[in-house]
Amino acid sequence: MNGEKIPAVILAAGKGERLTSDGDRPKPLVPLLSLSLLERTILSCREAGIDEFFVVLGHRGEEIEPYLARWERHYHLSITPVKNTNWEEGNGTSALSCAPYLKTSFLLLMCDHLFDPGAISHLIAEEKAEGACSLLVDRRLERVFDREDATCVRVTEGRITAIGKGLSEADGIDTGIFLCRRFLFGALREARTQGDGSLSGGMRILARAGKLRAVDIEERSWLDIDTPQALREGRRLLMRSLGKPNEDGIVSRLFNRPISVRISAFLVTHPVFSRLTPNAISLVSFLLVLSSAYLFTLEGYWAIVAAGVLIELGSVVDGCDGEVARLTFRTSRFGAWCDTLLDRYGDTAVVIGITYGFSRFHTGPLVWVGGSLALSGFLLASYTKKEHVLRYGKPLSRSLWVLLIKRDLRLFALFLGALFGRPYLALIVMGFISHFGIGFLFWEGRERRN
Amino acid sequence: MNGEKIPAVILAAGKGERLTSDGDRPKPLVPLLSLSLLERTILSCREAGIDEFFVVLGHRGEEIEPYLARWERHYHLSITPVKNTNWEEGNGTSALSCAPYLKTSFLLLMCDHLFDPGAISHLIAEEKAEGACSLLVDRRLERVFDREDATCVRVTEGRITAIGKGLSEADGIDTGIFLCRRFLFGALREARTQGDGSLSGGMRILARAGKLRAVDIEERSWLDIDTPQALREGRRLLMRSLGKPNEDGIVSRLFNRPISVRISAFLVTHPVFSRLTPNAISLVSFLLVLSSAYLFTLEGYWAIVAAGVLIELGSVVDGCDGEVARLTFRTSRFGAWCDTLLDRYGDTAVVIGITYGFSRFHTGPLVWVGGSLALSGFLLASYTKKEHVLRYGKPLSRSLWVLLIKRDLRLFALFLGALFGRPYLALIVMGFISHFGIGFLFWEGRERRN
Repeated sequence: MNGEKIPAVILAAGKGERLTSDGDRPKPLVPLLSLSLLERTILSCREAGIDEFFVVLGHRGEEIEPYLARWERHYHLSITPVKNTNWEEGNGTSALSCAPYLKTSFLLLMCDHLFDPGAISHLIAEEKAEGACSLLVDRRLERVFDREDATCVRVTEGRITAIGKGLSEADGIDTGIFLCRRFLFGALREARTQGDGSLSGGMRILARAGKLRAVDIEERSWLDIDTPQALREGRRLLMRSLGKPNEDGIVSRLFNRPISVRISAFLVTHPVFSRLTPNAISLVSFLLVLSSAYLFTLEGYWAIVAAGVLIELGSVVDGCDGEVARLTFRTSRFGAWCDTLLDRYGDTAVVIGITYGFSRFHTGPLVWVGGSLALSGFLLASYTKKEHVLRYGKPLSRSLWVLLIKRDLRLFALFLGALFGRPYLALIVMGFISHFGIGFLFWEGRERRN
Repeated sequence: MNGEKIPAVILAAGKGERLTSDGDRPKPLVPLLSLSLLERTILSCREAGIDEFFVVLGHRGEEIEPYLARWERHYHLSITPVKNTNWEEGNGTSALSCAPYLKTSFLLLMCDHLFDPGAISHLIAEEKAEGACSLLVDRRLERVFDREDATCVRVTEGRITAIGKGLSEADGIDTGIFLCRRFLFGALREARTQGDGSLSGGMRILARAGKLRAVDIEERSWLDIDTPQALREGRRLLMRSLGKPNEDGIVSRLFNRPISVRISAFLVTHPVFSRLTPNAISLVSFLLVLSSAYLFTLEGYWAIVAAGVLIELGSVVDGCDGEVARLTFRTSRFGAWCDTLLDRYGDTAVVIGITYGFSRFHTGPLVWVGGSLALSGFLLASYTKKEHVLRYGKPLSRSLWVLLIKRDLRLFALFLGALFGRPYLALIVMGFISHFGIGFLFWEGRERRN
């Protein structure tokens, strides 16, 4: 795109009656995990570097407009409301009403489509031909939600040759995410004179002229939210997207993540807890781990069990800061920096707590030598991973040893150790595993030498 | 340079009588800190990505040729010997003898010039005009070694207008490092028909035609090694270049580095010790620190003093691995990876050793809680620095706190503590400083948020 900034046009003029039958609020303002559909669309584009928006308003537009002004200030974006009095003639007229504002390329999106923000960057990166518009197309026909209602496309050699609902022999589904050029407006006007005010009408004219390219959305997720069922599916989709398949450890994936995403979903939608910033959640996780460390120093089985439960709870909540940040588009470098340092201090406290508690009944310095070695193992396991990225320019490959020295597993082992009344034993075992793991990773670095 | 590989032509055909009056070996094979002048020139170019060499041999060429074959194999380079039987007519004839081998651009260097390898990359990056050769020029007229014998240049608007020894009103010194194009050969032939077989003769013709550009070598060091005095100066220059002004801590700069560069110079030139690889030196440093940790666990003042001396010695030797690597062009990612992990394990051992020794006479878990906190502080000080690079894409700015949490200072403090019979006190103080420093750096990350 020659580095030029691309604006985004978002169509939010329609009625959307199937979703909002209660008439409680206009469809673009229907909330999905704390953010309204329109706000989510805008922020997803912002993730891809878009900072100029034209939002077309029609049905109940006067209710939506104040929000645009608020988001413009709050998110430091340029958001221009564009009124379309002809919105009932079709969404093509809504796109047309932005014609005076646009110079060359622009994104065209529907306010009620949920999508992986990576899809926008992908679409922009894949744009090649100056003389065509591009449409993100989903080739996974069998897996598309609400297939009957979807707009289908036929694709020949990268060009869309047919577009419409109920198309026989479809090759993909229209995701409603376009990268357009100004000549779209000519096509829309032509369709309208033929009595078709829809966006699809204009697109059909472009397709016939060979001016509509298909860009595969690949494995990225998206969803057209038209019904209450789709809204629930959108919620599931967002929660599923919070995991980090390439980073999460074994315990995190099987145990922590399923719990933490539910906690995060609760936190962002709750009127009081939604005020917690991701960094505040990092701090809560740290305080849980500190409390656990304190309880480990006490006598008695139940104190140890309570300590074990708190440490695992701290480990679960440690996932929530990032999840809440991603759900509400508040991820930041400082947040990650804060989280990782607090985690290391939490590890330090827990190791000292467990060793202190064990040293009440087992004197002699060897108890502490073991504790210190475990501490060194825990901290250096994290250190080694960072150092590897710095030295070799990429994270460690996902091997068994990498999974064994992750924090989720070591805290879970301490939790189990506490349940069995043997937290110090669990500490020493995990310390050993950490040092062995570091040795293995060291060796891997050695082999990469040649 | 459009990504094409540039070959290097190195002139090694002359007599160099002023340097090798003893006639012991040909000038290109005179050693400078373990590597011969010619080998050092080749490896300096390799640092800049050059892997194809043409070495012009003349005087005693038959003694030099076997080394070229050896280096070709050992360093995985292409090194072609080019014989010049007319070498006594001037070094221009030596350059001319490479004409059949060269297609477009090539570097042209003297075998007896020592230079910062960064100068080559700089010259290549600065090349702009297709229609000119470029010469690296040193503008620091007052600081050039052996000024009387240097070739001077006059520069007007980036073009060299005059070149020669004893030039009045010179603007810079010819460093003998050229980036040439084939039309140089025409100029050399023309000079030769006029009875001038020198390279300067050809360059003068280029200069008159406006085809010789000057590229400033800026602050990079270089040296023309013509005399035994210059050879000694070259040794000093190389040793000075081993420090890392932007990374070395206070103790490292004032105390460790001046000692370690002398040790490194000894190691690389000693017939036995020169076989030590940089990684073996890292291991020696680690073993010194481990021995120190063991001595700290023993009773008696002199054991503690010995431990203190060993830890400081380990800290000094910790600088030698990198120095030897840089002196002999053996730096590697694995070497740095190896060194940093061993340093962290050395820190762990010393903290445990000191705390163990102190716990012999002071019972109670608080001694070990203090030791564990110091351990955490030492390891996390290093961790925080790595994490900062990862999160913010650049190292921490060089503040007082960054200097206070460096390894050179903490090991020096432990050394001083040991001399005063108070290593545990020194440990606790340095642990405190480390945690404070981390807190400060954390805060710096916070401010960078906005």
